[in-house]
Formats: sequence, C-alpha cells, structure tokens
Amino acid sequence: MPSEPSPAADPSGPGASYSRGTVDLLGLVAYGELCAFERLAEDARTSPSLADKVQIAAMAAGEFGHFELVRDRLSALGVDAMEAMAPFRTPFDTFHRLTAPRSWLEGLVKTFVGDGFAADFYREVAAYVDADTRACVHTVLANEAQSDYIVARVRAGIAEDPTVAGRLALWGRRLVGEALSQAQRVAADRDDLTGLLAGTVDRPGMDLAAISRMFSRLVEAHTARMDLLGLAS
Amino acid sequence: MPSEPSPAADPSGPGASYSRGTVDLLGLVAYGELCAFERLAEDARTSPSLADKVQIAAMAAGEFGHFELVRDRLSALGVDAMEAMAPFRTPFDTFHRLTAPRSWLEGLVKTFVGDGFAADFYREVAAYVDADTRACVHTVLANEAQSDYIVARVRAGIAEDPTVAGRLALWGRRLVGEALSQAQRVAADRDDLTGLLAGTVDRPGMDLAAISRMFSRLVEAHTARMDLLGLAS
Repeated sequence: MPSEPSPAADPSGPGASYSRGTVDLLGLVAYGELCAFERLAEDARTSPSLADKVQIAAMAAGEFGHFELVRDRLSALGVDAMEAMAPFRTPFDTFHRLTAPRSWLEGLVKTFVGDGFAADFYREVAAYVDADTRACVHTVLANEAQSDYIVARVRAGIAEDPTVAGRLALWGRRLVGEALSQAQRVAADRDDLTGLLAGTVDRPGMDLAAISRMFSRLVEAHTARMDLLGLAS
Repeated sequence: MPSEPSPAADPSGPGASYSRGTVDLLGLVAYGELCAFERLAEDARTSPSLADKVQIAAMAAGEFGHFELVRDRLSALGVDAMEAMAPFRTPFDTFHRLTAPRSWLEGLVKTFVGDGFAADFYREVAAYVDADTRACVHTVLANEAQSDYIVARVRAGIAEDPTVAGRLALWGRRLVGEALSQAQRVAADRDDLTGLLAGTVDRPGMDLAAISRMFSRLVEAHTARMDLLGLAS
C-alpha cells in the first residue's frame, strides 16, 4: 500500500520527470533482479557439489523474492512491472551476453563484482527518490549473507590453484568495463533516470563535481570488493 | 521443532527400517524439489515473453522454498539433507537427462505431468509416515496455482498450432514411462522406502492387491491430468 501520493498519478504535472525517473529506477532494479535469478540458477546447475548447488539456488530464489518486492512497489505506484522493465532488457541482455562466465568461479566473481557495482549505483540513485521507493531498493540490495559465501569460495578456489588469480583479476576488470559501458547507454537513453542524479529545474540534484565524486565512490567500492576476493583490481 | 520423538534417533532399534524409510522419502522429495527448481529456471530462461518468464521463475523460486521446508524437516530429525538426497541423485539425473524438453511447451507438460505423477506417489508413501513428516510432504506438494497457469498455457499452445497435440501426447506417455522406470530402480535399491508401502514384521502395510490399486490410482490421476491439458493419454 502506498503511504504517500503515487508519483505516477499525474504523468504530465510538475515532478512528472522525477516520477518517470522513479519508475525507471524500479524497472532497472526489477529487471536486474530477474537477470540475477536466471544467472544464479545457471551457476547452481553447474555447481561442483550438492552443497554449493543448494547455496547458489538459495541466492537465486532470494533474487526472485527481491524482484517480487520491486514489482509490488511498482504496482503500488500504479505501474505494470513488465512495462517498467522493457527499456532495460537490451542493455542487461547485452551485458550478460558479453560476460557469460566460462567457469563456475567466473560466475561467482561476476555475481559479487557485477551485482555489487550495480547495487552501489542503484543506492546512489535511490537517494533522490521518495522514502518508500528508497526503502524498497535498499531492502532488495542487502546481500551480506551471500557475500560471505562467495568470498570464502573464491578464496578457496584461488588457494587450490593460484594460477586462476590473474585470470579472475582480468575478468573483474572486464566486468566493470562492460557494466560501465551499458550504464552509459542507459544514461544516454533515459533522461528521466539521469535527471534524478543531475537534478532538474524544479528539483536540485548533483552538480558535475558531485557526479564525479559518485564515480570515485563506485570505483573505490569495486576495488574493496576485488581486495576481499584476494584479487588485484 | 519435532513435536514427537525423532524417528532417526535410534537407527538400529525397533522401527529402524521405518525411520530410514521416512528419511528416504524426505531425501527423495528434497532432491526432486531441487531438480524441479533447476528445470523450471531453465524453462524461465527460454520463455517466449517476459510475463511467462516471471510466472515460471516464480514457480522455480517456490520449488526452492519447498526444498528448504523438507531440509528443515530432515534437520529436525537430526539428518543432513545432503546425505539423505545422495541415493536419489542418479535416478533423478537419469530421468531428467532422458527427458530433456525440446521446446518450451514440452517443458510445461513435463512440469505438469512429471511433477504431478511424482507428487501423487509421494503422497501415497506419506500415508505411512509420522504426522509431522506427512504434513511437510503435503505442504510442499500443493501446487494448485501453478497448475492453472500451465493448463491455460498448454491449451493456448495447442489452439495456436493443433499439430503439436499429437507430439505432446506422445511426450506425456514417454515422461510417465521414464518416471516409472526410475521409480522401479529406486524401489529395487531402497528396501526401507519400499517397506513403508509393503509393511514389515512390526508394521502392517499394503498387500499386493492394495499396491496394485495404488498403481491404478496413479495412472487414473495421470489420465485426468492429460485430459486437463487437452491431450490423449
């Protein structure tokens, strides 16, 4: 139930761009969660042990639960999730096609590095939306439990065969490169989403210096994640 | 929390075979749910529309939730789910390898017919175990909501292209044939599970006439499912 007036109620009134930006953010997160479900289910299938399969399948099911939360938030705003997700299918599908893991460890690193980077970016954008939407985005991005498992598993993989470290470090850089390139594409195509960060006439946002500081934060967080995995960034 | 003495507590005392049969049933259902998750996730990936993808992914996540319930019941009995599932990996993996769907509709029919048949069989066996285990098995096998979706989708597929009906009818027969052949294998390998149905010295079970009636019930239910899909059985 929406506890405040629906931002989607008046698509042409003042704040309409802000509203469309909110819907874009939720559509982006929803499709991202659905992709994460799919990718993790594939990683579960190729897991080396039954215990690993169960761990990864639990993450996949969790991502689908997150998708449902975002879909419900969109419903509360009077928006159909399928429509909200539609503009983000091409960039996500392209990202995932260009970064198909060639091993189970690459899959784990992709989840940790890719989803971590995306989550940081969504949180930055969520600072500029209404409180209910922000709370929803923060809830679905909290993945601490699965991070511990991935870090332990990747470190064990590197300990077992130290030669994989170089390849995985390269893989981490490639993932972030492709993610940035698709993010660029989304930013160029979706003015309302970009407007949330940059601000509009009736709504202040970040100036260029603040946006550049945001990118520094994203890169620092990425470096910290690679460190946790025991990989050079 | 177990509300009665754990049947696994005394693996060599009276009723030990019954206890091992209970653990076998739960292990069988748990691995079956995990396989169902995996197969549905694959069907979600190849769904023709985003709305179908979401429907099937929801089913997959639901099956994983069921797996967790069974795992928790095994834990309450002091049994590790990985160990309880181990004996059933080969028959399930063989079944799924031999019945890989070649189309999205075949995948839907497999879920409906295969999971339906397995669920009926588990329910028959569950009649002979303790009340908590029986309640757990009945909970995880309740899939009414997803059945409506599958029936509607398969019927729509046949209406769109009536020539698929013959192929899907054949597919339904093949699924049940392979399921029976793997069930036979499980029955031959797992005396304790079979003992639940057939009874033991200290525990009455079905006689041969009752077992034959059970198979009639399974086949009747299968025929009713094929009818629902609009397919000859």
